[in-house]
Amino acid sequence: MFFSSDNAGPAHPKVIEAVMAANTGYAPGYGADAIMDTVRQQVRDVFEAPEAAVYLVINGTSANALLLATMSQPWDTIFCADVAHIQEDECNAPEFYSQAKLTLVPTDDAKMSPDVLRSKIEAEQNRGVHGPQRGPLSITQVTEKGTIYTLDEIKALTDIASGFGMKTHMDGARFANALVALDCSPAEMTWKAGIDTVSFGGTKNGAMGVEACVIFDPDLAWEFELRRKRGGHLLSKHRFLSAQMQAYLTDGLWLDTARAANARCAQLAEGLRGHNALTLQYDPQANIIFFDMPRSEHKRMLDGGAFYYVMNGDPNEGDPDALLTGRLVTDWSMTEDGVQQFIKLLNG
Amino acid sequence: MFFSSDNAGPAHPKVIEAVMAANTGYAPGYGADAIMDTVRQQVRDVFEAPEAAVYLVINGTSANALLLATMSQPWDTIFCADVAHIQEDECNAPEFYSQAKLTLVPTDDAKMSPDVLRSKIEAEQNRGVHGPQRGPLSITQVTEKGTIYTLDEIKALTDIASGFGMKTHMDGARFANALVALDCSPAEMTWKAGIDTVSFGGTKNGAMGVEACVIFDPDLAWEFELRRKRGGHLLSKHRFLSAQMQAYLTDGLWLDTARAANARCAQLAEGLRGHNALTLQYDPQANIIFFDMPRSEHKRMLDGGAFYYVMNGDPNEGDPDALLTGRLVTDWSMTEDGVQQFIKLLNG
Amino acid sequence: MFFSSDNAGPAHPKVIEAVMAANTGYAPGYGADAIMDTVRQQVRDVFEAPEAAVYLVINGTSANALLLATMSQPWDTIFCADVAHIQEDECNAPEFYSQAKLTLVPTDDAKMSPDVLRSKIEAEQNRGVHGPQRGPLSITQVTEKGTIYTLDEIKALTDIASGFGMKTHMDGARFANALVALDCSPAEMTWKAGIDTVSFGGTKNGAMGVEACVIFDPDLAWEFELRRKRGGHLLSKHRFLSAQMQAYLTDGLWLDTARAANARCAQLAEGLRGHNALTLQYDPQANIIFFDMPRSEHKRMLDGGAFYYVMNGDPNEGDPDALLTGRLVTDWSMTEDGVQQFIKLLNG
Amino acid sequence: MFFSSDNAGPAHPKVIEAVMAANTGYAPGYGADAIMDTVRQQVRDVFEAPEAAVYLVINGTSANALLLATMSQPWDTIFCADVAHIQEDECNAPEFYSQAKLTLVPTDDAKMSPDVLRSKIEAEQNRGVHGPQRGPLSITQVTEKGTIYTLDEIKALTDIASGFGMKTHMDGARFANALVALDCSPAEMTWKAGIDTVSFGGTKNGAMGVEACVIFDPDLAWEFELRRKRGGHLLSKHRFLSAQMQAYLTDGLWLDTARAANARCAQLAEGLRGHNALTLQYDPQANIIFFDMPRSEHKRMLDGGAFYYVMNGDPNEGDPDALLTGRLVTDWSMTEDGVQQFIKLLNG
Repeated sequence: MFFSSDNAGPAHPKVIEAVMAANTGYAPGYGADAIMDTVRQQVRDVFEAPEAAVYLVINGTSANALLLATMSQPWDTIFCADVAHIQEDECNAPEFYSQAKLTLVPTDDAKMSPDVLRSKIEAEQNRGVHGPQRGPLSITQVTEKGTIYTLDEIKALTDIASGFGMKTHMDGARFANALVALDCSPAEMTWKAGIDTVSFGGTKNGAMGVEACVIFDPDLAWEFELRRKRGGHLLSKHRFLSAQMQAYLTDGLWLDTARAANARCAQLAEGLRGHNALTLQYDPQANIIFFDMPRSEHKRMLDGGAFYYVMNGDPNEGDPDALLTGRLVTDWSMTEDGVQQFIKLLNG
Repeated sequence: MFFSSDNAGPAHPKVIEAVMAANTGYAPGYGADAIMDTVRQQVRDVFEAPEAAVYLVINGTSANALLLATMSQPWDTIFCADVAHIQEDECNAPEFYSQAKLTLVPTDDAKMSPDVLRSKIEAEQNRGVHGPQRGPLSITQVTEKGTIYTLDEIKALTDIASGFGMKTHMDGARFANALVALDCSPAEMTWKAGIDTVSFGGTKNGAMGVEACVIFDPDLAWEFELRRKRGGHLLSKHRFLSAQMQAYLTDGLWLDTARAANARCAQLAEGLRGHNALTLQYDPQANIIFFDMPRSEHKRMLDGGAFYYVMNGDPNEGDPDALLTGRLVTDWSMTEDGVQQFIKLLNG
Repeated sequence: MFFSSDNAGPAHPKVIEAVMAANTGYAPGYGADAIMDTVRQQVRDVFEAPEAAVYLVINGTSANALLLATMSQPWDTIFCADVAHIQEDECNAPEFYSQAKLTLVPTDDAKMSPDVLRSKIEAEQNRGVHGPQRGPLSITQVTEKGTIYTLDEIKALTDIASGFGMKTHMDGARFANALVALDCSPAEMTWKAGIDTVSFGGTKNGAMGVEACVIFDPDLAWEFELRRKRGGHLLSKHRFLSAQMQAYLTDGLWLDTARAANARCAQLAEGLRGHNALTLQYDPQANIIFFDMPRSEHKRMLDGGAFYYVMNGDPNEGDPDALLTGRLVTDWSMTEDGVQQFIKLLNG
Repeated sequence: MFFSSDNAGPAHPKVIEAVMAANTGYAPGYGADAIMDTVRQQVRDVFEAPEAAVYLVINGTSANALLLATMSQPWDTIFCADVAHIQEDECNAPEFYSQAKLTLVPTDDAKMSPDVLRSKIEAEQNRGVHGPQRGPLSITQVTEKGTIYTLDEIKALTDIASGFGMKTHMDGARFANALVALDCSPAEMTWKAGIDTVSFGGTKNGAMGVEACVIFDPDLAWEFELRRKRGGHLLSKHRFLSAQMQAYLTDGLWLDTARAANARCAQLAEGLRGHNALTLQYDPQANIIFFDMPRSEHKRMLDGGAFYYVMNGDPNEGDPDALLTGRLVTDWSMTEDGVQQFIKLLNG
């Protein structure tokens, strides 16, 4: 009953097997391995983007920071949702790499609305050299609250950005979970909707630790390479990153794992809805659930062996009737039985 | 006949097996995995340093940059050999992380001499607020030229540094190769010789991609953790780093692989000495050889299927009699036969 | 009728005279001039802080950025009002110098309330190494809206900060205007109220371009000096900065000029209150007025020769009845007649 | 007898008068003052560069750091003489602003030779993404040793730079002193010789504190403006910078002051040549002299009331016969009598 995070789960056996298979003989380091040639082509095919620059890094923090830095100047401000991962959970990594600052767009459900985004951008526009300049927009898909932008919603935001001459980045740490929920193509969810660069996540969806940085404008490629090396993110035995991504993209493994995670989440949501002291904050669309429940119930669950985060208070101390928010995350490795066990515990 | 680099070779099977074994069930991310608890103790035992702070990162560039940044201020200058990896091959990563600059100490064989180091440090001392301030010293063991500092030589350098109130870092990307060559203990080669922090390499000696950052003064631990996270170098599924280091340190695997690499290097050097148009630049002590040989001979070797770097000219174009420098690096995975094959080709 | 900014006015003649007087013979550069010795003592006397470190820079942006950098770490977040100058008008200078980020505290009248500040600080506290760490608090006195914190209000904010182990900086670009309005001592408005460092403004209040950085904890002095030099803010012919500040602090010139500016502002507010289509946003306490008035009236004033900023729309285009916000700033050099002329124009 | 530095002398009375004259009424801040319009045209006329972007800052450190940052990327290395001011005396300011590093070109007399420069640039070229990339070249004219590049020598260096696709910056803290010594035009010494940007010094040659940043390619202008603001180097009451530069450039004042300083230096050198225990290190061409003399003689001079730097040892302690190096700098304000007094003291 480990629902604390999708990076607490194991890697998919096919990913591990690919890593083992890559471990034979000599291979040039630093991204010049033959497997990377395959991966580059796989990613371009997946995105229907034959010119895209494709690079691998070890995690989402570095993918986001390096892409945003490549799109920004030190005097810029990057627009993102107030609860974006780049704002809350990366210890100033985006600022470190880009030297830019962040402008937070207020949201309810972690999704920026076009009007609020526009007003925030306009507010940065009248100070000339005195204020921060407009840098890129960053959209998180799946959001931190587990919600998903529709294709039209993405397009509405990128249209605003491009109207101001701004580029748009997608933090796709849970890219696959959104994609299978929307049942669209990667191209539709990205460049066809106005996205310029993507942090394409593998780690949370079955890899050991790999994310692809996809840059649709190849003119930015060399700068990205220099930034990656300078940040210490160019792996020497790079084949072990390549192999993970190769397996991830072969035979639709990445879509299967995302579907499995989303299915477990749906099953879980279904079970939660049956509990009368519990409210779902958002209709879960991908693999994350936020719910409100009395403290005493959280305590009972955690004491009973469930693992998940309680976001806004200590589950063990305070008014037992106070509502606290819990977060549940599913991943590809969970079983129907595991979810059922959680629901059974919940229903006491 | 792949002698281009020790990061082009495979990982040791035991390392891969440990990674596979770690891939079961849920494990807390970000370094809180149980395997890391074991690794921390292993490293402390290896270094006889029960209080040392121990962290894992993916490569030497990040290990060096993060440790030096933790030891420096933005107005400092870091002292290192003129051919140090942090100067030549890290695309400004040490400067990016530390904001400090580097002062290069001239060397012949990549080893700093006490007198030259002292004169460089003294030269930075009389400008008060106008000049860079004295930051840490960084020593590379094995050096970029394949030479090794004796324990007394290390001590002589760290004594000078501490006399100026400076700390000392060891870039130990090839730590094990030096250690088995000197036949001393890790403690003797580090803190007993005045070293304050170590980049303890695994990647070049049998791991997939892992280095331990060892900090003997635990007061620096929290700053290091923040810098690692901010640099995007805290792995989410950290157990896969931990597992590599665990296998590496178990039953002396790391010493065995280093001994194997050094033995192949000695065998290779023995063979090279028999070639009359070839000169070894330094008596190889670890797993790296630099040698001078006519261009025509380099061309013959490369055409014949040998892989290695020719450092100072195009082996295919120019005066065939001109002497060019070649670099050969051995690793744990090479066989006596493989080396013999190279020598045979050399002897024509 | 030039009410656009208090840095558009001239320097006080006594300041210019002091600069002329300083221009005789040789004087050591870089802050070692004899006048600076006098200034240091003057500032310490004014603040009743015999141990304070005192440095001069050319403007408020550098004073704020250097002080905040000296109080911060690169992984910190600095707390300030949402409309603070450091957020809106310094083109990322605070982030450039400190490498930290800013957390914006929502305000109505540019003054932070203790409860909102506390909730913002608490929100940054539960993410361990993943989130930004708590850096200093920065309070602007006079605020960007022309409002003033009472001594109790300052104390309430610094108490919260120190409860979290945070230090507090005061952006005192208009320090004197606040001081004479509150009729308190510099010590009362700063260290006695929990302030650790002050950007003590001279430029807007009669100097040519000088601000004193006052640091009550002298342990930070050397780091500040290094940061100032590294930022290019250590003047070579420093005596010309010293001379300005010396004149500014002699015989209470700085208090006289602030009283004059505030008096003109009060006179102006009195006049504005008589205009029935005009509303003051805040009761002006220092030398800044924000007021709402129909576009057509703004247009009439600007066409009639008044200079001031209209903040939220083009005064020449759009609905003539729409209310737009104007900002008026007074300085020491304005005359009663000048203000009267503006009011007369307003009353048509 | 104050020969320690040309920034220890006073400003020229005409500069002070211009500052006083500028102090009337209201003037827009931040470089929008009318005097700056005049200055811009003056500088363009002086350099015969009608398109050049022209900005003012307070000192040479900020001028150099801002220009080099505008010409560099964070992964670059900037080439300069080993004793350049940007290396030795700016406390990492160039690195802070540019994030690039410096590659030092060894020199004897502070002048880079084309061959050595070329070899240093070539040495940075074969590491691809691993090594620093080639950034701009920075030439100091007058050098730190008081020597001057001829126009042909400048051209030889900039030709090498442009052959590698690199731009060239001139640190002209003592631009005027070199210009009058070479008896050429500003255009000839800069863009006609391949220079792209110039730190055009005023401070050391009669101003209070002002340097013009001259950028011959106006495409870099906006980036420079943003960098200046972000560095805190955009003055609010900018007219006081403008006024200094206006006076400096009016009626050739800047050439007169430079000629005066150089003449005093020549007079001084003439006198020194008559002392038999004293050797001039270089034939002084501008306003700086380096000379070797026994410690006992330095001590006698300093005790006798002469002020200058002894570079490589304590004049008061040690072998009285040991040769120590003294540095003498003249400025516009020195009199023939003042120099004569020094020589008289020397001749005992």
